[in-house]
Amino acid sequence: MDERVREHAEVLVDWSARVDPGDNVVVSVAEDAHDLGVAVAEALGERGAAVTTLYGSDELSRAYLTGRERESASGDDAPEFPDPAVDRALLEAADVYLRLGGGRNTAATADVGRETRQAYARSRKEVRERRMATDWVSTVHPTRSLAQQAGMAYEEYRDFVYDAVLRDWEALAGEMARMKEVLDAGEEVRIRTERADAPDTDVTMSIAGRTAVNSAASVAYDSHNLPSGEVFTAPYDAEGEVFFDVPMTIESTRVRDVRLVFEDGEVVDFAADAGEEALESVLETDPGARRLGELGVGMNRGIDRFTDSILFDEKMGDTVHLAVGRAYDACLPDGESGNESAVHVDMISDVSVDSTMAVDGEVVQRDGTFRWEDGFDG
Amino acid sequence: MDERVREHAEVLVDWSARVDPGDNVVVSVAEDAHDLGVAVAEALGERGAAVTTLYGSDELSRAYLTGRERESASGDDAPEFPDPAVDRALLEAADVYLRLGGGRNTAATADVGRETRQAYARSRKEVRERRMATDWVSTVHPTRSLAQQAGMAYEEYRDFVYDAVLRDWEALAGEMARMKEVLDAGEEVRIRTERADAPDTDVTMSIAGRTAVNSAASVAYDSHNLPSGEVFTAPYDAEGEVFFDVPMTIESTRVRDVRLVFEDGEVVDFAADAGEEALESVLETDPGARRLGELGVGMNRGIDRFTDSILFDEKMGDTVHLAVGRAYDACLPDGESGNESAVHVDMISDVSVDSTMAVDGEVVQRDGTFRWEDGFDG
Repeated sequence: MDERVREHAEVLVDWSARVDPGDNVVVSVAEDAHDLGVAVAEALGERGAAVTTLYGSDELSRAYLTGRERESASGDDAPEFPDPAVDRALLEAADVYLRLGGGRNTAATADVGRETRQAYARSRKEVRERRMATDWVSTVHPTRSLAQQAGMAYEEYRDFVYDAVLRDWEALAGEMARMKEVLDAGEEVRIRTERADAPDTDVTMSIAGRTAVNSAASVAYDSHNLPSGEVFTAPYDAEGEVFFDVPMTIESTRVRDVRLVFEDGEVVDFAADAGEEALESVLETDPGARRLGELGVGMNRGIDRFTDSILFDEKMGDTVHLAVGRAYDACLPDGESGNESAVHVDMISDVSVDSTMAVDGEVVQRDGTFRWEDGFDG
Repeated sequence: MDERVREHAEVLVDWSARVDPGDNVVVSVAEDAHDLGVAVAEALGERGAAVTTLYGSDELSRAYLTGRERESASGDDAPEFPDPAVDRALLEAADVYLRLGGGRNTAATADVGRETRQAYARSRKEVRERRMATDWVSTVHPTRSLAQQAGMAYEEYRDFVYDAVLRDWEALAGEMARMKEVLDAGEEVRIRTERADAPDTDVTMSIAGRTAVNSAASVAYDSHNLPSGEVFTAPYDAEGEVFFDVPMTIESTRVRDVRLVFEDGEVVDFAADAGEEALESVLETDPGARRLGELGVGMNRGIDRFTDSILFDEKMGDTVHLAVGRAYDACLPDGESGNESAVHVDMISDVSVDSTMAVDGEVVQRDGTFRWEDGFDG
């Protein structure tokens, strides 16, 4: 076994999930994440945790859902799903939930009807809530399927994943704390890019009263992805224009070169060079889908390219992202609710050249370099 | 997908486990049992059950156990295991438990210490009991690893498995009911073989007051293996000699040509042409390990050869088996306990030629043919 698989497991168990002796840990292993599963099981044995292993197979999910669909095909209604009592019970008893992604086909559930998915999701609301109440962490094992999604050779993709995951997280958390400090103290963010080859971005948004999350890939930082490496907050009252040059996939549709125009915090105009209909469908979900839910600053310099996976793309150094839709509670004052929506869709801009991010008029990042870094040209 | 995989799943879900709409079904999928897992998930979706999928990987178990072992290596004691609260909770909530065997290496846990295994098993006593309280069924998906164990080509082994599993179970259950009737009414069984090429068998045992189980591969028959196809009871007071000509594996040791001599129900002499030490270790486990726990009559004519897997071997038509050790409660009068032991080891004799089984002096099977079958020569 590649020694990096073991290192990945140790970062996951110790830094990310903070597993203690006696913890009951549920590990969900995707179809081709077996090797990472073995390494995680070994680490959990060493730490003295109890382990329950789920098989997180998209192909099994698809079989179950299409089976349900077929049986219900007589009526026009979405299929009904039984009460998932076992899943509720097991998550109620779990201290930690580790999701090891890495299947064989990122499109494995593509032919499951939308109504079926939604009905299934509704039947599992409590399961989801209980999972979120554990110390949960989501990561991926590098598989051929994910390498294909990224347009990379398998060996190359493995190097990419381990460069992103095997960081000095303690040091990165310290650096990200500086960004969090700036955002927590600030009232207004302005992002500008002026590139010859692309539409300009010039957008301002309020962050007054909001708290940024130092997403350092650990439950100790309220951060549940490995890799992570972003600082995010919940902005509002956006004004101006934004161009997102990083391609993405929205509901299996490739979307490129999105432009959004905000007035009074709301998207009043939009366009995309590809996938505009998918974008439109997102924005029309509900009123909250036209307002911002997140501003995130990517700070993981181990990620050096876009791979069409939000787990990696939004954490890349020299990028910022905005999400339309739901805001995260962790960014809001206690008891206050932020932007609400059924969706949360991240869109990413490269800010490595001809760009600035300013907080209350002071530039904090120029051309990807932060104020506290060597080479910052204020 | 081979259409027989779907048929296997349907027999498992409908005939064996009797899954009802709304049932919470836990499915444990071994490393290479993915295809059967897909077919079972599809069938469970169609039936309207809820499904939770476990990953039953021997390699993950080995990693966990050796991790625990290594961490505890400082002391001389066996490692301690934490309370498996999640496994208890999930089995408490489960209606049905389906085990889909079929890993990649039947020796995957061979280097786990005996004390570690035992300590782990002790920590999971309640988990085991709760699993046995569900409508549980154990089956296997034909894998290359199991084909190798059987000494067969992969394609050949698949045919073998489906011939054993895809029976007319209703008809076989009817035939086995006749055997059960004979054993329930009988008081004494005598088995004799006189073959030129092997030691003689001539053994009698009492079955008075005992109830036979019609093991028809369905929870409705108190039968939890697919395939099954045997009728078994709990004999006592054995007298005589038995020769077991079917090879077997006891704790990873190949054992061949076992001879046992019984007096007053107890093994007083034993020998084996190979693996005699493993046999001796079994017989010395505890006092009950020297007495009979089971007499079984194989009646599945879909199984036409021995494959070094007790799931199949003991159900083969034209065989009988005796087990030393623990008797099954289902064979005993309510509240009465039968032979008790920590072990239950089955040993098999071919009775296709030069043999008879008689109940209370009347021959019920001669040279493999039952009294009620064409060609029976009473």
